[in-house]
Amino acid sequence: MTDTLIRAAVVGATGYTGAELLRLLHGHPRFAIGYVAGHSTAGQPIAEVLPTFAGILEGEVEPFDAAAIAERADVAFCALPHGASAPSVDALREKGLTVFDLSADFRLADLAVYEAWYGDHGAPHRHSERVYGLVELNREAIASADLVAVPGCYPTAAILALAPILEAGLAKPAGIVIDAKSGVSGAGRKPSLKTHLPEAAEGIRAYKVGQHRHTPEIDQELGRAANTELTVLFTPHLVPMSRGILITAYADAAEGATAESLTAAARERYQGSPSVVVLDPGQAPDTLWIRGSNRVHLGYAVDERSGKIVAMGTVDNLVKGAAGQALQGANVRFGLPEGMGLEQPAAWP
Amino acid sequence: MTDTLIRAAVVGATGYTGAELLRLLHGHPRFAIGYVAGHSTAGQPIAEVLPTFAGILEGEVEPFDAAAIAERADVAFCALPHGASAPSVDALREKGLTVFDLSADFRLADLAVYEAWYGDHGAPHRHSERVYGLVELNREAIASADLVAVPGCYPTAAILALAPILEAGLAKPAGIVIDAKSGVSGAGRKPSLKTHLPEAAEGIRAYKVGQHRHTPEIDQELGRAANTELTVLFTPHLVPMSRGILITAYADAAEGATAESLTAAARERYQGSPSVVVLDPGQAPDTLWIRGSNRVHLGYAVDERSGKIVAMGTVDNLVKGAAGQALQGANVRFGLPEGMGLEQPAAWP
Amino acid sequence: MTDTLIRAAVVGATGYTGAELLRLLHGHPRFAIGYVAGHSTAGQPIAEVLPTFAGILEGEVEPFDAAAIAERADVAFCALPHGASAPSVDALREKGLTVFDLSADFRLADLAVYEAWYGDHGAPHRHSERVYGLVELNREAIASADLVAVPGCYPTAAILALAPILEAGLAKPAGIVIDAKSGVSGAGRKPSLKTHLPEAAEGIRAYKVGQHRHTPEIDQELGRAANTELTVLFTPHLVPMSRGILITAYADAAEGATAESLTAAARERYQGSPSVVVLDPGQAPDTLWIRGSNRVHLGYAVDERSGKIVAMGTVDNLVKGAAGQALQGANVRFGLPEGMGLEQPAAWP
Amino acid sequence: MTDTLIRAAVVGATGYTGAELLRLLHGHPRFAIGYVAGHSTAGQPIAEVLPTFAGILEGEVEPFDAAAIAERADVAFCALPHGASAPSVDALREKGLTVFDLSADFRLADLAVYEAWYGDHGAPHRHSERVYGLVELNREAIASADLVAVPGCYPTAAILALAPILEAGLAKPAGIVIDAKSGVSGAGRKPSLKTHLPEAAEGIRAYKVGQHRHTPEIDQELGRAANTELTVLFTPHLVPMSRGILITAYADAAEGATAESLTAAARERYQGSPSVVVLDPGQAPDTLWIRGSNRVHLGYAVDERSGKIVAMGTVDNLVKGAAGQALQGANVRFGLPEGMGLEQPAAWP
Repeated sequence: MTDTLIRAAVVGATGYTGAELLRLLHGHPRFAIGYVAGHSTAGQPIAEVLPTFAGILEGEVEPFDAAAIAERADVAFCALPHGASAPSVDALREKGLTVFDLSADFRLADLAVYEAWYGDHGAPHRHSERVYGLVELNREAIASADLVAVPGCYPTAAILALAPILEAGLAKPAGIVIDAKSGVSGAGRKPSLKTHLPEAAEGIRAYKVGQHRHTPEIDQELGRAANTELTVLFTPHLVPMSRGILITAYADAAEGATAESLTAAARERYQGSPSVVVLDPGQAPDTLWIRGSNRVHLGYAVDERSGKIVAMGTVDNLVKGAAGQALQGANVRFGLPEGMGLEQPAAWP
Repeated sequence: MTDTLIRAAVVGATGYTGAELLRLLHGHPRFAIGYVAGHSTAGQPIAEVLPTFAGILEGEVEPFDAAAIAERADVAFCALPHGASAPSVDALREKGLTVFDLSADFRLADLAVYEAWYGDHGAPHRHSERVYGLVELNREAIASADLVAVPGCYPTAAILALAPILEAGLAKPAGIVIDAKSGVSGAGRKPSLKTHLPEAAEGIRAYKVGQHRHTPEIDQELGRAANTELTVLFTPHLVPMSRGILITAYADAAEGATAESLTAAARERYQGSPSVVVLDPGQAPDTLWIRGSNRVHLGYAVDERSGKIVAMGTVDNLVKGAAGQALQGANVRFGLPEGMGLEQPAAWP
Repeated sequence: MTDTLIRAAVVGATGYTGAELLRLLHGHPRFAIGYVAGHSTAGQPIAEVLPTFAGILEGEVEPFDAAAIAERADVAFCALPHGASAPSVDALREKGLTVFDLSADFRLADLAVYEAWYGDHGAPHRHSERVYGLVELNREAIASADLVAVPGCYPTAAILALAPILEAGLAKPAGIVIDAKSGVSGAGRKPSLKTHLPEAAEGIRAYKVGQHRHTPEIDQELGRAANTELTVLFTPHLVPMSRGILITAYADAAEGATAESLTAAARERYQGSPSVVVLDPGQAPDTLWIRGSNRVHLGYAVDERSGKIVAMGTVDNLVKGAAGQALQGANVRFGLPEGMGLEQPAAWP
Repeated sequence: MTDTLIRAAVVGATGYTGAELLRLLHGHPRFAIGYVAGHSTAGQPIAEVLPTFAGILEGEVEPFDAAAIAERADVAFCALPHGASAPSVDALREKGLTVFDLSADFRLADLAVYEAWYGDHGAPHRHSERVYGLVELNREAIASADLVAVPGCYPTAAILALAPILEAGLAKPAGIVIDAKSGVSGAGRKPSLKTHLPEAAEGIRAYKVGQHRHTPEIDQELGRAANTELTVLFTPHLVPMSRGILITAYADAAEGATAESLTAAARERYQGSPSVVVLDPGQAPDTLWIRGSNRVHLGYAVDERSGKIVAMGTVDNLVKGAAGQALQGANVRFGLPEGMGLEQPAAWP
């Protein structure tokens, strides 16, 4: 790579993930925003739809047009709903762009599993191009990929917390329970009673118990780490805050599992990874500590009375759980330092 | 009982649990507030320490004085920290009062277990008088008790959710995981960095992983329900809201466990209990729906992929998890309808 | 009045104001809920639409039908949007019911002013029956009224804070500025981006600056108190919380205005009013102290440097600002003690 | 200036303002963190006191030592409480460092006014060196200053909103009312009942009515803008959120004041200022839109009925209201582009 700026398109720019992509691209020294595409907001000034960009981003949201995007961008980040994404990804790939897809459409390696959980796939002929975009576990493949499936927010936290201790044989793969807690921005920008402040503030609740579509993605990647098929029980909860995911995962301890050995295994696994911090044994991560940043905080404990491991992980669902992770992958793909443009610590408190 | 008012003392009245006792006693048709005792706030007008009582409760907070209390009260509710509570309970029992102790000091049947988790007991000679005050499971004993140990907030939700399905043999007792989420008022009224709004809002975190003192209380009562010793893994989390506890409990499904059979078992168990609502299969309880009320909402699901049960329960930690539960027990103890003065639905939203 | 229960209908029962009416009526010793009417929710179980009533209120939401309501109710509380309310009120009056209208349709004494701010009136022939329902200022008229216009939430706080000091001549009527802050439930139950938790939490903003429709209502009643026409500047703000209104009002001090004299004037004016608490000079009211209760807290200060009065008032927008106020008026109308069923202190914290 | 990094010390680094200085300095291309000083936290790892810096900032908090700081820094940012700050500033100036003082100690031009509001001054002999650090109004003086008094958070928003319209003669200087709303981080990192989540969430209240110490600072700077002495009434409120200040200011309209003319005056005044955005007439700023950024959003309206101007301004109290503003001043002082390192848009939502 020379020092030329890499031109990026953001498709679906006015949802939360899209806005976060714009924020991170704006601050990145080597990417330039070349195209801002939206559907229902096309034609409106960017700063009107996203007032945080007043005085920062000029211009209007433009409609999706693969040919026009191809003229003004080298890479496209697609932040569209699953189902709607695959055809757009296909059109952009057709024009030769490298695509980071933030939907679920290319996350599952097995098309049949995709269709069991999501229904028909919108571009099955592209499926063979997919590379799973969890950078810490898949750097090499991403470096030469042209269709990267950016992981889901929950799977990012769950897989990063559990993969190293499964790989190390310290946790048993059978019977894993993942209790996840998410801020409300994870539900997207479409208003509903579930996200209406008076009914979402001051309350916590589980949803889609045993039925959340991130489950097969977690099974897939943890199975790879454990080198055996496994089936987790995944239960998400909606928490009265805007951003942040905490997963608290429970697994049966294998021989040798202690808070110290688990911590050491994770630290070794993520050696050199700029986005991962493994806390000291006994420390529990807090979503507030990573809000707005691309960092993952992991923490481990072992409960000797019950013989179970507690593995905890936090991410900002919009950054490491979405836009930041995509950009981290793009850094790898375009030969830049993996953490470039993603160094900011959380804005705390 | 005649229609004479029963005179109640509240000891430790200016913490959150004490204030809630005052609120509920004020609205109860058959109890009258006879004595309001506080330690650091003694001598101050009640309405200055607790401005919600401005124009409602006259008078000052008085110091603890067992003899004076005995002259003006028939029953005492002690809302003191564990350790500090036992000697006060002892002094009040000495004077012949019926005591509802909201601390942990008399919750554990086995003194040795108490001392392992809490240290020396302050009044071991009173220990034999104790009756565990979870009304739905222990009505008969409470009806003639003079020293009632009001259950902890987390155990209330956890035990009410799990006991009926253990009793019915639908859940396996080994390997139960309880993931609990609590609003910040559960940490009491003493300010700290953990509860300082800028560091508690917009973040979620686990604490005391595998070490929370409510664990042996849960083991004790669920063991009774399952008719076998058991050891749960209990992990509490602090959630950015003021009130409310949600427990999400995971157990291996036994033969016959379905969302329907679990729901039916719980409904049968709590038949006639005015405080318990078992939601329909597929519904997940929300802490917002019971905030400010003495109700428990329970919900059940079975995840067939993993063979696990998800049992959920919500309580307001200050009402059914503390003050309301105490008053519910006092209703039973004094021959009143169990739900008297506790009928209010949640103030929603 | 005999001890017979007064039968009440709630029309528009599944919005926030309607739900609060159900909650308060349920706890009232002399009212019974006779009819629960909803529009979009008709036919659904009440406990499904309003899960706080699970195990408490049986039955379904019914469609609006004035004749059917008249058979099962003596009084109707209409919690409908302005414009939609007047025709329903008219139909219920036609059947002889006493109606408490919680919309804006009958709040303004001058039909021309109504039409300037709201457009055509839906039942102008009923206008002469209207009585303004701010109980503290209008008890006598309410006692014999059959169409009571329950005041708006902002006007309730603003008028109660300012009327006594205008009546006493301690505040000058010209140039009054009212800066109001409201929780999000004041925007109703219809989801929108403005109330979507991620865009409403952690932010504060003014809205409808100089254009809010509660302005003429405040002008009308404060003009009555000051015995002169006046024009306030009213600016509402949306605050990241569910319930509660604080108004901070600024007026030029007249001769003799001190924190003490203002406090004394308000206390004298509200002597015997069960819902009003005037705090000591120097104390500032907090919406948390009245959340869930029918109380108003008022506080007064004088800034000698600028020669201005600061008058502060808090109400729960859904209780004293809506449902509680309506019920307080109904108590007066039906010869019951004014505070009956409204005695609960706030559920704090 | 060459490309050498400018070495910065942060004194009082583990409060909120200090932490924010570290965050912004960390991301700044031309400043390097040379010394991290704390008092009660000296000797602890930075990442333990401020977990957001785990994996980012190595090393421990060091005690304050002016000589040691002088060896490792060119400029010091002092984020100490007022009163405690002046002696530290003096010691650092003694060693020749340029100092940005974020306390109130050097904000007031008249020592007598300082002493009337704050008590004795800790370093009156340094007073003549002070330059008021509101960059938009005082760039030239800051460019050559060695002791910059960084403005208070409230004054920043209030002065930036009102100064241009006073300078333009569109607002009358007499009788200005400033109603301010702040997130809780403005109260600092010391826990208290006022900031304890259960008593600070879900409530709003005024405090220090007519007595807040930011008042004389506002009077001073607005008087300068209006070219006449003036006395504002300033009333701050605590709002249930972490960050952000909104001021809603009310002034009598002078000849020619319209939303358009006010907007135009502000736009002209801030032409070229990278931190100020003046919204279109009719738009009201929202603190969420500037959270975490160094931007100020201003908005103007005129209420013709009352003849009053509503001027609104939002800042993040920890960024443009403190750390960001200090760094903006340091950019100016060291000849860098004013907005360098401060370009990030808000992390929204």
